[in-house]
Amino acid sequence: MPEFMDIHHGMTGITADQLMEAHQADLAIEGEENVHFKKAWADPKSGEVYCLSEAPSAEAVQRVHERAGHKADEVHEVPLSV
Amino acid sequence: MPEFMDIHHGMTGITADQLMEAHQADLAIEGEENVHFKKAWADPKSGEVYCLSEAPSAEAVQRVHERAGHKADEVHEVPLSV
Repeated sequence: MPEFMDIHHGMTGITADQLMEAHQADLAIEGEENVHFKKAWADPKSGEVYCLSEAPSAEAVQRVHERAGHKADEVHEVPLSV
Repeated sequence: MPEFMDIHHGMTGITADQLMEAHQADLAIEGEENVHFKKAWADPKSGEVYCLSEAPSAEAVQRVHERAGHKADEVHEVPLSV
């Protein structure tokens, strides 16, 4: 299954609880799109949030994020990793 | 040890071998800055490369990347993760 990194800008001040809630909202519905969100990292200072997922397509990743209430600003397939 | 996500833009067309070489160049010298690059992901289409590291500071991350010949465009501390 392809991997994707998606980015949310503007999440300045995000807390650990808010990140967890957002991630749980994705996990609750991801199965309907055959997506799995594996990990997320946040920088409350700059407001950047990065999510790593496995999914059939970038569109499927975005659909889950949109339905969970937090559309991503960028979704990139990352076919290479080390 | 704090975690960091750094981003390189403009790496369009990067290959698996090139990503591995760049990562190895970081690993070869990272110890001198007490940095450890844990993982890297690349999107050859958009040219985005993401590196996850543990390091004492963003400056230490950047010094390793610069000495290895590939300065990052952004380095963000990511104190939150799920």
